[in-house]
Amino acid sequence: MALLSALTPVLVAVLCLVIGLMFVKSKSSEVKAQEKPKDFRPWVDQDLQDNTDVIERDDDDVEDYNEEKDLAHVPYSPPRYPVEAMVKRSQDFYSLMNQRRTVRFISPEPVPREVIDNVIHTAGTAPSGAHTEPWTFVVVSDPETKHQIRLIVEEEEEVNYRQRMGDKWVNDLARLKTNWIKEYLDVAPYLVLIFKQTYGILPNEKKKTHYYNEISVCISCGILLAALQNVGLVTVTSTPLNCGPQLRLLLKRPANEKLLMLLPVGYPASDATVPDLKRKHLDDIRVHI
Amino acid sequence: MALLSALTPVLVAVLCLVIGLMFVKSKSSEVKAQEKPKDFRPWVDQDLQDNTDVIERDDDDVEDYNEEKDLAHVPYSPPRYPVEAMVKRSQDFYSLMNQRRTVRFISPEPVPREVIDNVIHTAGTAPSGAHTEPWTFVVVSDPETKHQIRLIVEEEEEVNYRQRMGDKWVNDLARLKTNWIKEYLDVAPYLVLIFKQTYGILPNEKKKTHYYNEISVCISCGILLAALQNVGLVTVTSTPLNCGPQLRLLLKRPANEKLLMLLPVGYPASDATVPDLKRKHLDDIRVHI
Repeated sequence: MALLSALTPVLVAVLCLVIGLMFVKSKSSEVKAQEKPKDFRPWVDQDLQDNTDVIERDDDDVEDYNEEKDLAHVPYSPPRYPVEAMVKRSQDFYSLMNQRRTVRFISPEPVPREVIDNVIHTAGTAPSGAHTEPWTFVVVSDPETKHQIRLIVEEEEEVNYRQRMGDKWVNDLARLKTNWIKEYLDVAPYLVLIFKQTYGILPNEKKKTHYYNEISVCISCGILLAALQNVGLVTVTSTPLNCGPQLRLLLKRPANEKLLMLLPVGYPASDATVPDLKRKHLDDIRVHI
Repeated sequence: MALLSALTPVLVAVLCLVIGLMFVKSKSSEVKAQEKPKDFRPWVDQDLQDNTDVIERDDDDVEDYNEEKDLAHVPYSPPRYPVEAMVKRSQDFYSLMNQRRTVRFISPEPVPREVIDNVIHTAGTAPSGAHTEPWTFVVVSDPETKHQIRLIVEEEEEVNYRQRMGDKWVNDLARLKTNWIKEYLDVAPYLVLIFKQTYGILPNEKKKTHYYNEISVCISCGILLAALQNVGLVTVTSTPLNCGPQLRLLLKRPANEKLLMLLPVGYPASDATVPDLKRKHLDDIRVHI
């Protein structure tokens, strides 16, 4: 009894330590649990993580072409237009681009492959961080692959719509269908899937960070849209984010590539319509100082 | 003594609790310390945080124009070119865009304001998430403001270069200067600062989230680069991230706008040079399925 009494402080101390350790452990697992988003799907969500926005202080400028340092410089003298021609060209290009619209009604008519190649070649002239050219354009014309893409996109879209609409709409399938069905993914002669390369592989097989890969690929996409408009083709600029990993595997793209955009491309259908949207006036988007 | 002996377990328990609490507290303050980046500058770094990459599952598609739902649809029939003309147009546009280069040697010669306005008007034809048109183009031609911008950019660049180069270069000012000096910010007739509007203001003064604002503005920037190239002007596609908050205040832009890009615009200098870079071949950027 005396021995037990002498040991009591020790026992209490051990007990407190055990309780203390459990407390600390439960705290840290709580933190881990918070990090997981609702409906965590390891395969899908982890794949979506990339380091696009991890900007190192010493690399925060697209113009900082490290690889240029050892390159020879060559004279650059592009064509120069007289002022009048310049003004006219700027007006004409505005008029052409201002006719562009997002069009969901795409004709199944074939489009010359050469035109699509030239459009993508044009997109590849975009500037990029450290001239990494971190883009891959996957052009799908195979009907079976297009259909697989449609199934993947529609499955994700269905999840999106059901979650968005809430329980009261779940049974209203007819109404929902009009929203998540993407017929143009079967119909358009081409689907252009634009991947950003989040990193590159160095000759020594180490990873090479592609800073600004998303910004660079989006700029490239802007030039691609201009090139499509220039030849009279239409598209829908869509970003099917949650389908990226599945589409990447379907198209056998490597792990460093993430799907950024999916553009169905073709002529507009003869009965195509667009919502009667207006664009902002110049004075509402431009400030002069 | 018996009382003390009886109290010993209690004292030990209290002691353990105190130690346990101190341990938990030090853990959590450790976590907080880790969250702060090195050289934390509350004003600058907090301002840089935005919600561009916080994508809600129910809004993950640029093509999802909520505001279109109540809009009338109108027929859309853009010009259609015969196949031969289409191929020719795609080739010509590729040739024109393939001449584009990032040019740091910009001529001080004046450029017609009308051309710059048309170029920005063209950039404003880009698609955007929910047709929010989340861009503001600040065109600076005032010499004093250009110089202020240069001072802000160079100050940040100096920090960047010093941190990058490490202590052994700190005294080598002459060499460093060649890197962080941006003369073109004084010289170019126009500086175009492209802001993304990270959210909008609803009529009831609540915030309206602008999903995909960064992607949309980058696409717009791609179209802007195409428009500049079309009129024979050059630029440097730069993203001076750390200067954003200071430049935003200098230019009196509201808090919902974040600087995304800074483009000095003008004719190339007569002795302009560019690094002798090559672009990837079409087969290295395009996959056909």
